[in-house]
Amino acid sequence: MANQTEIRFGILGCANIARKLSRAITLAPNATLAAVGSRSLEKAKAFASANNFPPNAKIYGSYEEVLDDEDVDAVYVPLPTGLHLRWAVHAAKKKKHILLEKPVSLNVAEFDAIVDACESNGVQIMDATMWMHHPRTAQMKDFLSDTDRFGHLKMMNTYFCYAGDEEFLKKDIRVKPELDGLGALGDAGWYCIRAILWAADYQLPNKVKALRGAVHNDKGVILSCGSSLHWEDGKVATFHCSFLSHLTMDITAIGTKGTFYLKDFVIPFDQKEANYFSNSQFWVNDISCWVPTPKNQVLDLPQEALMVKEFSRLVGEIKNGGSKPETKWPIISRKTQLVVDAVKASIDKGFETVEL
Amino acid sequence: MANQTEIRFGILGCANIARKLSRAITLAPNATLAAVGSRSLEKAKAFASANNFPPNAKIYGSYEEVLDDEDVDAVYVPLPTGLHLRWAVHAAKKKKHILLEKPVSLNVAEFDAIVDACESNGVQIMDATMWMHHPRTAQMKDFLSDTDRFGHLKMMNTYFCYAGDEEFLKKDIRVKPELDGLGALGDAGWYCIRAILWAADYQLPNKVKALRGAVHNDKGVILSCGSSLHWEDGKVATFHCSFLSHLTMDITAIGTKGTFYLKDFVIPFDQKEANYFSNSQFWVNDISCWVPTPKNQVLDLPQEALMVKEFSRLVGEIKNGGSKPETKWPIISRKTQLVVDAVKASIDKGFETVEL
Repeated sequence: MANQTEIRFGILGCANIARKLSRAITLAPNATLAAVGSRSLEKAKAFASANNFPPNAKIYGSYEEVLDDEDVDAVYVPLPTGLHLRWAVHAAKKKKHILLEKPVSLNVAEFDAIVDACESNGVQIMDATMWMHHPRTAQMKDFLSDTDRFGHLKMMNTYFCYAGDEEFLKKDIRVKPELDGLGALGDAGWYCIRAILWAADYQLPNKVKALRGAVHNDKGVILSCGSSLHWEDGKVATFHCSFLSHLTMDITAIGTKGTFYLKDFVIPFDQKEANYFSNSQFWVNDISCWVPTPKNQVLDLPQEALMVKEFSRLVGEIKNGGSKPETKWPIISRKTQLVVDAVKASIDKGFETVEL
Repeated sequence: MANQTEIRFGILGCANIARKLSRAITLAPNATLAAVGSRSLEKAKAFASANNFPPNAKIYGSYEEVLDDEDVDAVYVPLPTGLHLRWAVHAAKKKKHILLEKPVSLNVAEFDAIVDACESNGVQIMDATMWMHHPRTAQMKDFLSDTDRFGHLKMMNTYFCYAGDEEFLKKDIRVKPELDGLGALGDAGWYCIRAILWAADYQLPNKVKALRGAVHNDKGVILSCGSSLHWEDGKVATFHCSFLSHLTMDITAIGTKGTFYLKDFVIPFDQKEANYFSNSQFWVNDISCWVPTPKNQVLDLPQEALMVKEFSRLVGEIKNGGSKPETKWPIISRKTQLVVDAVKASIDKGFETVEL
C-alpha cells in the first residue's frame, strides 16, 4: 500500500512518453504508480508490466475507470492534444489533480475550460514541460536576471527541431489533424515559446508574426514553422520548430551586457549533470571564449522526476494540508498557449502580424 | 626597396581598422606598406610611425597623392562608406587594385559603378571580410556541403552584435548619416548576411522581410535590426545585428542530418587556432553533446593577413602574370550588398516583404 505522503498516479493511455513518466513517478519519492487505463485492457496490462508498476496497481480497459478509482489522487494525461479538453475536464470533475502533457490544448479557449474545471473542483493542474523543473533552469534564470552580468534582454532565438523518419511523418499522432492539429508548433514550438516567455519574465509579446516558409503536410498539419515575437520595449525573439531538421535544442539570449547560450535545453545531454554557457562584458581583444559554468549540479533525479516530485508536493499540500492549488503553473501554460495560438493565427493569415 | 613579388599598398585614411590592416600587410609575405594618405599630413605621419611603416614608405597629406604614386600597386580603402563610390572609382581609374572595406557601398547601384570602373581598368577588387580567408571557413564549408554529415540546409540564424559605449553612439562614423548611412546593418549586418549567403552557396533568397523592432538614432541611422530571408526551396534564415547588445558572433545552421554551430565567426577567439562545433545524426538517447572539431589549425598568420595574402596573390598574377581579375569576389560582394539593400528597403517600407 502506498504510504500516506505518496501521491497515487493514474495514467491515461499508453503513449510512448508515458513510459518516461512512469519511470519518473517511480523515481519521485513522493509519488507512486497506482493505475493505468487504456482503451485496450491488453495494452494496459502490457504497459504496466513493461514499466515496473507495483503489483497492487490497477489495470483498466478504459480511462473512465481510472477516474472513478478512489485510490487515484492524480492523473497524468499524455493523450493526443485533441482529447485534452474532454479528459482533463472529466478528470477535474472527478477531483483528480492533473499533470497534462503539452501542448495543453488545441487553443486557449479549450485550456480556459480545463482551468475552470480545475478551479471549480479545487484540483492542481500543471503542464509536463520537464525542463522547467531542472535545477539548472533556476540557475540560468539567475544569470538572465543579473543586471551586471547579463543586463537587459534585447534579442533571443530558440530552436527545437528533430528529423522525423518516414514512419513518424506518416503515422505519428503529431502529424494527424484529428489528434494533434498543431503539429510541430504544438509539440516542438511549445518548448521554444516557453523558453522565450521564461527569459522574458513571462511578459507576453504585443506582436507576433510568423516567418514565411511554414511547411504543412497534405492534411494541413504544421511540420515546420517559425515566428518572431515583439515586445513594447523593443525586445525581439525568434524561434523555429520542425519535424524536418536535425535534432537541435538551442537557446541564445543576448542582453546589453552578456550573452547566454544553451545547447540542450529540452533534454539535457547528461541526465546527471548539466551546465550552460555565458559571456559577460566580453570584448574582442580579450581573446577569450564562451565560459561554461561548472557541471556541479549532480542530480539524484532526472528532470522529469523532479517535475513529478514538485507536482506531487503541491498535490500533497492540497490533499493533506488544506492548501489551495498553485496558480502559477496554469498561468504559465495559458501564456504559452496564447502565443502558440497567435503564431498559428499568423500562419493561417498568410504571415500577418497578430496583436496580443 | 620592395621585392618584385611584394604588392605595394597605399592606405587611404587613418581609420581605426587601418591599424589592423597595416599590421596584416606587414605580416603577409607578398605585401608591403608603401604609402599612407590622410587629409592631414600630421595624422598620416603619426599613423605611419605608430604602425611600423618601413622608412621608405610615402606619407601624404591627401588621398589623391597616394593614387598618383606609381610605386603603389593597390589601395586599402577604409574610408566611411559614403566616400567609397568616389574614391574607389577614382582609384580604379588610376589603375590601383582595391581592397575595399565593408559595406562596399551605400547601395548596389554605387557598387556596380565601382565594379564597372574596376573592370574597365583591369584592376582587382575584393571586400575586406576577413573571416572568408580563415582556413577554418573552408573546413566548415566542407561540413555544410557534406550530405551525410549535414544533409541539406533548412534553417539558419546569425548574430553580430556589440554594445557601443556612449562615445561610440554619439560620435562614431558608423552612426552618422552623412558618412555611414547603413549603420549597424552595413557594419555588423554585413557579416551576418555574408555568412548566410556563404552557407547557402551564394544562392540569393527570393524574399527578404525585416523583423519589426529596428532601432534608429535621432538622425535615422540603424542601430539595431534583423531580418528573415526566404528561398524558393523553403530554406529560411534569420539574423540580428546591433550596436546595442553584448558582443555576440554566432552562426547556427540546421540541416536535415546535422547541426553546425560557431560562436566566433567574425573574429576567432584565438588568433592562432580555431574550431567549430557540429553534431550529426544525433538522437536524444545518445546522451552525448555537441562535438567540437579539434583545434588543429595552428595559423602562422591571422585571418586579416591571409586576406591580404590572397588579395596580393591575385594582384600579383595580374601584374606579373597577365591574369585577369578574379570575378568571384565582386560577385559575392554584390550579392551581399543586394541583400543589405533589400533589408533596408523592407525596414523603410514598414517591414514589408521585399522580392529579390
